[in-house]
Amino acid sequence: MHFTQADHEYMALAIELAKQGQYTTTPNPNVGCVLVKNEKIIGQGFHIQAGGPHAEVHALREAQGKTQGATAYVTLEPCSHYGRTPPCAKGLIDAGVKKVICAMVDPNPQVAGNGIKMLEQAGIETAYGLLEHEARALNKGFLKKMETGKPYVIAKLAASLDGKTALQNGQSKWITGPIARQDVQSFRAQSCAVLSGADTVLVDDAKLNVRASEFKDFELVDNLAQLRQPIRVIIDTQNRLHPNLSLFSQESKIIILRTKLDKQHQWPHFVEQVCLPEFKGKLDLHAAIEYLATQNINQVWLEAGATLCGAMHEQKLIDEYIIYMAPKIIGEGGRGLFKSSVLTEMAQIPEFKITECVQVGTDIRISATTK
Amino acid sequence: MHFTQADHEYMALAIELAKQGQYTTTPNPNVGCVLVKNEKIIGQGFHIQAGGPHAEVHALREAQGKTQGATAYVTLEPCSHYGRTPPCAKGLIDAGVKKVICAMVDPNPQVAGNGIKMLEQAGIETAYGLLEHEARALNKGFLKKMETGKPYVIAKLAASLDGKTALQNGQSKWITGPIARQDVQSFRAQSCAVLSGADTVLVDDAKLNVRASEFKDFELVDNLAQLRQPIRVIIDTQNRLHPNLSLFSQESKIIILRTKLDKQHQWPHFVEQVCLPEFKGKLDLHAAIEYLATQNINQVWLEAGATLCGAMHEQKLIDEYIIYMAPKIIGEGGRGLFKSSVLTEMAQIPEFKITECVQVGTDIRISATTK
Repeated sequence: MHFTQADHEYMALAIELAKQGQYTTTPNPNVGCVLVKNEKIIGQGFHIQAGGPHAEVHALREAQGKTQGATAYVTLEPCSHYGRTPPCAKGLIDAGVKKVICAMVDPNPQVAGNGIKMLEQAGIETAYGLLEHEARALNKGFLKKMETGKPYVIAKLAASLDGKTALQNGQSKWITGPIARQDVQSFRAQSCAVLSGADTVLVDDAKLNVRASEFKDFELVDNLAQLRQPIRVIIDTQNRLHPNLSLFSQESKIIILRTKLDKQHQWPHFVEQVCLPEFKGKLDLHAAIEYLATQNINQVWLEAGATLCGAMHEQKLIDEYIIYMAPKIIGEGGRGLFKSSVLTEMAQIPEFKITECVQVGTDIRISATTK
Repeated sequence: MHFTQADHEYMALAIELAKQGQYTTTPNPNVGCVLVKNEKIIGQGFHIQAGGPHAEVHALREAQGKTQGATAYVTLEPCSHYGRTPPCAKGLIDAGVKKVICAMVDPNPQVAGNGIKMLEQAGIETAYGLLEHEARALNKGFLKKMETGKPYVIAKLAASLDGKTALQNGQSKWITGPIARQDVQSFRAQSCAVLSGADTVLVDDAKLNVRASEFKDFELVDNLAQLRQPIRVIIDTQNRLHPNLSLFSQESKIIILRTKLDKQHQWPHFVEQVCLPEFKGKLDLHAAIEYLATQNINQVWLEAGATLCGAMHEQKLIDEYIIYMAPKIIGEGGRGLFKSSVLTEMAQIPEFKITECVQVGTDIRISATTK
């Protein structure tokens, strides 16, 4: 399909709008919409929160009365089903738009081309595939979940230039600088869940929450005090967690994954214990990921030590690696990023694709995905 | 000093011109010159090779007869002394230019402000400090040598994302991709010397030369067959090198640094053995660097294993680290980048400054310098 320069610019704007929902829409996707008539923008909007109006509704409201004959740019195919809101395809038809350009078809089986079909049946011209790559990047978690039934897992790692996470004696505060740590807060806030292990919680007395004081995109969140907290999921096979840890001082949902229930402690109301099967004496990580998929979790932020990261890596459960690298050299004896099997052939080394490499304060952030 | 937008653009051009000499000028600095009259470029040039005309001479020749009242943009202060060529300051005076703008003063004690003084005494207006940062980056080796008497040492490292250079069993061919390896050829070609250890030469049967077949900037070198070869400097404390190694198949200068002469082998004419003092049972690396300084070597490209890199790092003899990072994860047991003392306190970790972070083919290249 042929798209004009103007089409590109309006869709790029719709994508920028969509991003404004990045901390709030989960488990719904981020979507942006721009309405254009006679080369003028007459309405724009983005999806803010599940249960609230979709992007198209916001844009149509803004353009009220002027939508006859307009073109709609939407980052995701308009929905065709009655959910918590009526179908957006119907809204666009009722508004009299003459053309709808989508960045991509919605893989949600409840939509999957039906939105476009509904528009076409009403005589509206449609097109899709404009800035699809950028639109997909908005919703990695939502798309993976829709396409495979499993959440998208991002492993966060932090190391020196020579790949060490700590000194031989375990000291590691801090390898990376304050701006990289602030950056981590944004990723946590975008995720449905933060996954970690009992070790990390016990050794660092980690809270693994989103802290308003360290959160940088405050203009995107109406009320910092109400910043959405991702579900914190902690794997604790040996039942070593106890309710006095700082983790439990933040009153937001925690799931503890175990292989046998802990009956020793009284847990706060926001803590749920879930028992999962064992695999080779440890908690079955595939079962863990599948369980999280049942909990409306699209995107998992893995922030753990070398043992859990190594096991997730070896079991190919990580979709993306985000490595913060500090301009430091620890050298001999420093601790490594992954505890995993020793490889004996070059051909065994898993290969990835670098998708980004940027400076974050005094550090670097490298993103790599499975090929 | 105030510089106009046009001044910036002409100086930026002069810097681009200077870069064209990057493979050929050593031990002389890279210098570019642009001559402008009535807002038109009337001459431009760069220094190509030690002994040949300086940048100013090339530019003046191109502008012949039109130089009266022109402005000269030079990336380095024009020289004031009679060397292999007459002083450029005199050339500019004779040409009747009315103004000379330099990016920086030449730290060479034979010049060091005298070029500017000579111009001013002839009534020519002068200014300096325009794009000085960029101009300094052209000549890191030359400047460090002039300012401290020592060469600028760049350590080249290559690792997986988790900082491993090889499998536990030593296999390492290849961690990085062909484009990164081509990139290394450019850095070798820019350097006065490549420094390595006997281990690297023996284990990889490394040639450590510049190979025309892998060299990418061929438009900058007149005759690839005559590509300047950096001096190869190999530290061989235990006299393990022998003349049958591939290293010696390339007939260009090799210096073997030892602690005691090898009298066992017959060495080719281009090989020089140099004995240096010991320090703690190993060759004294400070003495090695000081020796290289006496050999017209401004920039050293260190391409060695974890032992030599670790020792150079620990003795603070490295000015810049260039790390090629491949999108691979080796994990447990992989070999590290530096063999060095084990640190016990976070405060002992040396800190650097990231100066660049770019994708090179499928890999990343990170540059970090001492602060």
